[in-house]
Amino acid sequence: MMSFQEELNAKVAQIEQVIGKFLPPEEGYQKVVLEAMNYSVLAGGKRLRPMLMKETYELFGGMGKEIEPFMAAIEMIHTYSLVHDDLPAMDDDEYRRGRKTTHVVYGEAFGILAGDALLNFAFETMLKAVPIHTDEPEHLRVEQLLGLAKAMEVMARKAGIYGMIGGQTADIEAEKMSEISKEQLLFIHENKTAALIQAAMMTGAILAGAGVGEVERIEKCAYNIGVAFQIQDDILDITGTMEDLGKPIGSDEKNGKQTYVTLNGLENSKLQVEKLSREAVEILESFAGDSGFLKKLIVSLIDRNK
Amino acid sequence: MMSFQEELNAKVAQIEQVIGKFLPPEEGYQKVVLEAMNYSVLAGGKRLRPMLMKETYELFGGMGKEIEPFMAAIEMIHTYSLVHDDLPAMDDDEYRRGRKTTHVVYGEAFGILAGDALLNFAFETMLKAVPIHTDEPEHLRVEQLLGLAKAMEVMARKAGIYGMIGGQTADIEAEKMSEISKEQLLFIHENKTAALIQAAMMTGAILAGAGVGEVERIEKCAYNIGVAFQIQDDILDITGTMEDLGKPIGSDEKNGKQTYVTLNGLENSKLQVEKLSREAVEILESFAGDSGFLKKLIVSLIDRNK
Repeated sequence: MMSFQEELNAKVAQIEQVIGKFLPPEEGYQKVVLEAMNYSVLAGGKRLRPMLMKETYELFGGMGKEIEPFMAAIEMIHTYSLVHDDLPAMDDDEYRRGRKTTHVVYGEAFGILAGDALLNFAFETMLKAVPIHTDEPEHLRVEQLLGLAKAMEVMARKAGIYGMIGGQTADIEAEKMSEISKEQLLFIHENKTAALIQAAMMTGAILAGAGVGEVERIEKCAYNIGVAFQIQDDILDITGTMEDLGKPIGSDEKNGKQTYVTLNGLENSKLQVEKLSREAVEILESFAGDSGFLKKLIVSLIDRNK
Repeated sequence: MMSFQEELNAKVAQIEQVIGKFLPPEEGYQKVVLEAMNYSVLAGGKRLRPMLMKETYELFGGMGKEIEPFMAAIEMIHTYSLVHDDLPAMDDDEYRRGRKTTHVVYGEAFGILAGDALLNFAFETMLKAVPIHTDEPEHLRVEQLLGLAKAMEVMARKAGIYGMIGGQTADIEAEKMSEISKEQLLFIHENKTAALIQAAMMTGAILAGAGVGEVERIEKCAYNIGVAFQIQDDILDITGTMEDLGKPIGSDEKNGKQTYVTLNGLENSKLQVEKLSREAVEILESFAGDSGFLKKLIVSLIDRNK
């Protein structure tokens, strides 16, 4: 029997094959932006969002191919947000995952353009799931087209001003403030991190034909996963060892950064992570499908020491 | 009878009302990015793309409301491209239409984020045309949903790496080269300028139910308009008076910039503008609908002295 890590690695390899199918060929007068896009997407990473999408799709019995463009699209959206975050005017990061960041390699103008291009191409890619060029439109069903539109709507909303971009904005604003409320911090965690996890899992559920109530429970489950992941980040900044984290511990405290831990205390934070994580697993167990791997994945994300 | 200018002004006012309906309210923890978005969109401008979209829609008999979110969306896409173009790493412009550019007012980070937010929100807005939350999906028709998907596909493609972003990329690349080919220059004009005009007019035609052949002729018509407009720009840089243009004439030549005129000569350039413009009008006249205003609009765009 495969270990969790072996199973995880095999799934990552499959996902990277899917993503690769949708990346643009590097040719034409616009070649450099295509190279910058592919460089950014192929920089590695856990492929967590497409994985959560596919696992949730299968949990609800999904067996088609229409999930694939959405898996590639969510990774493009996640990647564009990293490329723009790394820009000099934002976090000014020169390295990510041991490689030079996109704007360092291709220049700042193409860092901006490659990010724009990835966001735009994410929607082009999702639209490939719609059988637009069919000769026999009468064979299509209204429910099928509505499902694709609903999935796109969730992706767009959770990536935008009422999702990820909203969270990034509130985060930048918070850095300028001497005090923030617990409510504002939760808004940041919910939108900056949880929103794209929600988009991933909700899209998987919607495309598999899950009902409205089921999609709502998946939204709650994904919220818990995203927020628990962020609180665990804050906890590890206090309790982690420098060796495990690969960065100085206590850096949040030193920078005067307000985190879930500074606002709620270490014990309450640990209890909250446990509660959110347990609820997420309970929600998954309430569905009839096999959520074995998904549960292990969630626990590995939250119950970690780095 | 209203003059063309009066008619134009009245239409611009109507379009600005439509756009205003789809802009986000400025509230919540992400307020600043919403303000930056609205500041950018409300900076004025000719509203040319939504106007071409609506006029083409009506040319093909369109009478519904589903065009409105697309009109707002194309202006959001056009605006985000200007906001990002103005950034220090791109053209580094401090003023646009007499107002400070977005990054000057809100800072560079929010210049980047507001552009991202507008691009993303353009897709959220288009998706509002899809009756996703209907209780009676059986009343929807497959053709209706396919039309919306086709319009979104054209918008996404023409805005992206095989459209506007592709043209911007080739333009930045061309600036570094001592010589460019006529083919590359046409690629830039076609994609940087004509592509969004194509998106506008094709979307109008598709949503009004035009056939595949009609949409193709509209695509050609919009190509001609966009390319003629750009060549006219190059011509005016040589022949215009400084007073008309509000900028130094001959600036392209002085900067060593290669333009349609430097590559093809002034006389050939004028002939080409005339040819493209005449063909565009002929295409419009080949349709049964009333293209009176549209023809005047096109002539005013191309046959100008500033």
